Parts: sequence; structure tokens; C-alpha cells
Amino acid sequence: MHILITGAAGFLGQRLIQALMARDELAGKALTRLTLVDQVTASVPDSSGPESNAPKIHTHAVDISVPGSLDAILDSRPDVIFHLAAVVSSAAEADLDLGWSVNFGATCALVEGCRSRKLSTTRLIMASSVAVYGGALPPVLDDMTALTPQSSYGTQKAMCELMINDYSRRGLIDGRVLRLPTIVIRPGRPNAAASSFASSILREPFNGEEAICPVPTDLNLFVMSPGRVIDALIHGAEVPGADFGLSRSVMLPGITVSVAGMLENLREHGGDQALALVRHEPDPRITAIVSSWPAAFDARRARDLGFSGDTSFSDIVDAFLNERSP
Amino acid sequence: MHILITGAAGFLGQRLIQALMARDELAGKALTRLTLVDQVTASVPDSSGPESNAPKIHTHAVDISVPGSLDAILDSRPDVIFHLAAVVSSAAEADLDLGWSVNFGATCALVEGCRSRKLSTTRLIMASSVAVYGGALPPVLDDMTALTPQSSYGTQKAMCELMINDYSRRGLIDGRVLRLPTIVIRPGRPNAAASSFASSILREPFNGEEAICPVPTDLNLFVMSPGRVIDALIHGAEVPGADFGLSRSVMLPGITVSVAGMLENLREHGGDQALALVRHEPDPRITAIVSSWPAAFDARRARDLGFSGDTSFSDIVDAFLNERSP
Repeated sequence: MHILITGAAGFLGQRLIQALMARDELAGKALTRLTLVDQVTASVPDSSGPESNAPKIHTHAVDISVPGSLDAILDSRPDVIFHLAAVVSSAAEADLDLGWSVNFGATCALVEGCRSRKLSTTRLIMASSVAVYGGALPPVLDDMTALTPQSSYGTQKAMCELMINDYSRRGLIDGRVLRLPTIVIRPGRPNAAASSFASSILREPFNGEEAICPVPTDLNLFVMSPGRVIDALIHGAEVPGADFGLSRSVMLPGITVSVAGMLENLREHGGDQALALVRHEPDPRITAIVSSWPAAFDARRARDLGFSGDTSFSDIVDAFLNERSP
Repeated sequence: MHILITGAAGFLGQRLIQALMARDELAGKALTRLTLVDQVTASVPDSSGPESNAPKIHTHAVDISVPGSLDAILDSRPDVIFHLAAVVSSAAEADLDLGWSVNFGATCALVEGCRSRKLSTTRLIMASSVAVYGGALPPVLDDMTALTPQSSYGTQKAMCELMINDYSRRGLIDGRVLRLPTIVIRPGRPNAAASSFASSILREPFNGEEAICPVPTDLNLFVMSPGRVIDALIHGAEVPGADFGLSRSVMLPGITVSVAGMLENLREHGGDQALALVRHEPDPRITAIVSSWPAAFDARRARDLGFSGDTSFSDIVDAFLNERSP
């Protein structure tokens, strides 16, 4: 089992690598080779297993938006591709061409690269996003709600989804598209995602640092913990393609929580002194993007496909606090 | 008012040219220049107006899928672009690369060409299609139903729609996307559209010729007459962009009719001898494509935007018979 991961140096990529190496197998086949691709050289976690069983790991620092950059890697015929590399929402909004070339262009190249090499059974799992939705949405969405994204990031992801669906329908690739809810609580530092605040307003105060909340507290978000997202990516590689039926895209089963509810959890777990570290500084640009995303979703289809989510926002906070303590 | 039409040699292009020249104006501005683009040199209908008022007409035989082929034409800065050129559904299904390069690639080039020339107020009207819908659809669709096309043609159109929406949202272009129902009754000969039969089973018998019906007679279609489609294209150029709100795509208000209902109209207007000219030869490939399209649509949004449709299938047949008689 040879697995290729794009965006391997990113937060999700690193967690996925750890999860895969802890499992040793995927879809019942032993993990023999991991190919890690990112703009920078991806870190490789220490293998905890015996040396003989450890997969061979190849890392490539590559700009996947450069035509042909993935050729040699695809020539090695991976069995599973986790396509996580992306220019995030705020960055794609600020630079249309950058977002287009990475989010859309590189995905096209990856899909066409699989097609031209007849990698029709290679399972291609693309991380899509709640940002494919937007505009005048119903109170509760489902997988038959139209994609009317109100950001270039969401648009580029939605276009990739259509292409992956069509190529899968034609049997040219075996694609799977997982629409990720807003991921909270991310470790590390704020990034250029419009949703970055959703982790910051918890993570920073728990670390004794100030955080800025740029949105109204009555804003609802559709969220999922990093642990459940990694579970979903792995399940996305294991579920038979035929189970997806006429659409390879599925919204993962996040949970709905208001910013006020998140802050109440901050107070419950971190006390009033943690809550006091959150400064409210409305940012119309971020509010416009984030409030265009759906807040409630009937994820029956995802559950029918075997995907599962978090049980409560309190559990998400508990998981974060458990992971950060040694 | 300088109008550019791609696909100008096609059936819709030719009718649109005639309709525009009969009006002399668009959006209250006198028609001064018509630029006609197609693979072949488009016919130019005789101008019925006085010579001094007739618009200047330029025709270009161009393969718009060739990079740069539209550069000189866009340099002339059209005020309105009707983008009708397309590889139709069966042809795009048979040749993925051809459909991709014309339906998607050329549209991308057109949109990027407008953007790079700062043609942000040029109204770009793209003909999309009922084929953007497909799969497990609700009995009655509306503009918030997800696009899950089951053909490469529908996929390519849906991808263009997303791009046009995003570029319009960013103010880079002023795009409008009209999703055309199945157009009946087309004049001329059968073409490579999967829906070609829908015209053939009426047109050929009215001309005393045999026609093949490749689908079950209980199949419902969502249809619009050529006259109402041309009206809609013109209205699509005249309606203010802001009226579209958060989505530049709209399904035109077709009517629902079964193949049996169409054949009943054939008998009513042409008698038993006309009906007897229809041979039933099921074609699973065509049936698969056409039955994946929606048959009923709540087109309230289109009507709110001022688009109107046919009143009955009998009227569609009457219009066809009136037009073909001298």
C-alpha cells in the first residue's frame, strides 16, 4: 500500500501521517510506502513500530501548481492519494490567481495525471470545505443543497469537486470528496483561513494569550475536531467507491455551535480569566466570508456512508486539552 | 452597442442575430456592431432596416479552444457577449478532451480575457443547460438544488457557471448564466445532442419523414421553444446584474411534457399518418443521459427576474408550424 499525501507538512497532513503510521495498514493492506509532498519538506514523525515493518518514506518539496511537478511522483503509481494541499480561504480571496493555480490548477493536474497513467483504481481523497456553500441558504442544508460559494476558495473547491465526480463517473479515477466543517481546535498559530479565529479564541486563551474574535457571538459555525477529521479522511480511503452512488462528494457530520457557545465552553474549561483574554474586534471582511457558510447540516448521507463526528463541543475542548498536556 | 456572439453559426446564434437586427437596439442602446464568431463563417441575415442604421458586422471563423484565438476580438471591447458556442452533450460524452477544451477551456479563456482587459461592465451571457442537473433528484427542482451532473457536458457547464459566478461576485466581469431547458422544436437536422430526438420525433414526421424515438414514452422532459429561448437570451442581457443577487445562474422557466404528450400533440396537429412515422428504438445510452435531467422545475426565481416561458406544448407546436410555412 503506497500512499501519497499532498499538503503533508500542514496540520492535517502531519496528523494524518501519524495516524497512518500508528495503524500500519489501510483498507486491510500493509503500509509499505509513504510519499509526502508539500512546498516545504514535510516532517516525518518517529515510527514507533519495529524497523522491518516501517513504511519507506519519501519526501518531496514541490510547488504542485507548477505543470509537471507531480509527474515523477505519479509515475510511482500510488494506491491512495490524500490531496490536502490548498491555499486557504482568506489567502485565496486576497490573491485570485494563486488560489486558482493551487486549488484548481494543481487538482486538475493531479486528476489528469491519474487519468493519463490509468490509475483508475487509485483512491483519490480530496479535502473540500464547508466553504463550497454560501449565499441565501436554507436553515438546515443537506447534500442536495446547491453550491453557491461566496468566496473564490469555495468556488475553486466546488469546481474540483465537479471534475472529480465526472472523472469518477467515467471510471477514469476513483475519487472521493470530503467537505470538511470548520476544524476546531487547531494547534499552532493563526493562519490565513477566514475561520482561523474559531481556533484562536480558544487556543490562545488556554495558553494564557490574548485572542481576537472578529465575528458577532451569535454567529453559528459548523465544526469538527481534528481527530474526527483524520478519522474521516482514513474512512474516506477505505469506503468502497460504489457506496458513494451518483455523487462522490459528501459533507462530513460536523456539529453546530455558536461563537457564544464556544466562549461559554472556554469559560467552563478555563475560567473567567481565560474568557477575559478574548477581545471583540469586528472584522467585516472575515464576518462576510464566515457568515456565508452554513451552520447546520443534515449529514445523514455521511453517516450512512460510515462517517462519524463529535458528540459535543465540550468533548472537542476536552480532546484539545488532553492532547496538549503531556 | 457592440455585441459579440460565439456559436453564431449555430441554430440559436442565427436566430439571435435575426432577433437583434429586428430590434435595432439592446438595453436601450442602438446596435452599432455585431461580431460573429464560430468554427465556420456564420451566415449574416439580410438587414431589413435602412442602410444607415444597420450595424457593422464582422464575422470570424475561429476555433475558440485555441489559446489566444479570442484576443483580437476581445481587444475590440464588446459591450455584450452571448457565449453560445459549445460541444453538445453526446459529443462531449464521446470525447472528454474535446468537450473539456471547448466547453470549459474556451469559456475560461473568455472570462479571463474579459478580466485582463478590465471589461468589468461587459455583460457576458452564457448558455448553460438543464444537463447541469442529474442523479437522484427531487420530483420538483429549484435554483437551490445541487448540481450533480451525470454527463461531462453538464459537468463542464457547471464548472463554467461557478467561475462566472465568482468572477462576477468579485466585480471582474458582469456574467449571467441561463440554464436552457431542452429546446423543441429545433429546425434542421438531428445533431449530436442527446436530446436531439425531442425535436426529431415532431419535426421529421411533420416533414413526412421517419423519426426514431430512443426513449420510453413515459419520460418527462423540461422544454422551451426556440422563440422563448431567444427572448430569454435578450432579457438576460438587459436585466441589471445586481438583480441576480448572490447567484448569476438561473434556470429558465420551461414546461414539463412527457414524450407521450409530445406524440399526442404530433397526432393532433399532424394526424395518425404523422404519428405512424415515429419508430420506437430504445437507446440505453441516450435514455441514461436524458433521464438523468430534471423534468419539473419551480422557476419562480426566473419569473421574478422577468424571464418568461411557453404557455403549453400545443403552442410550441403551433409556433413551429407557423414558422415553417411561408
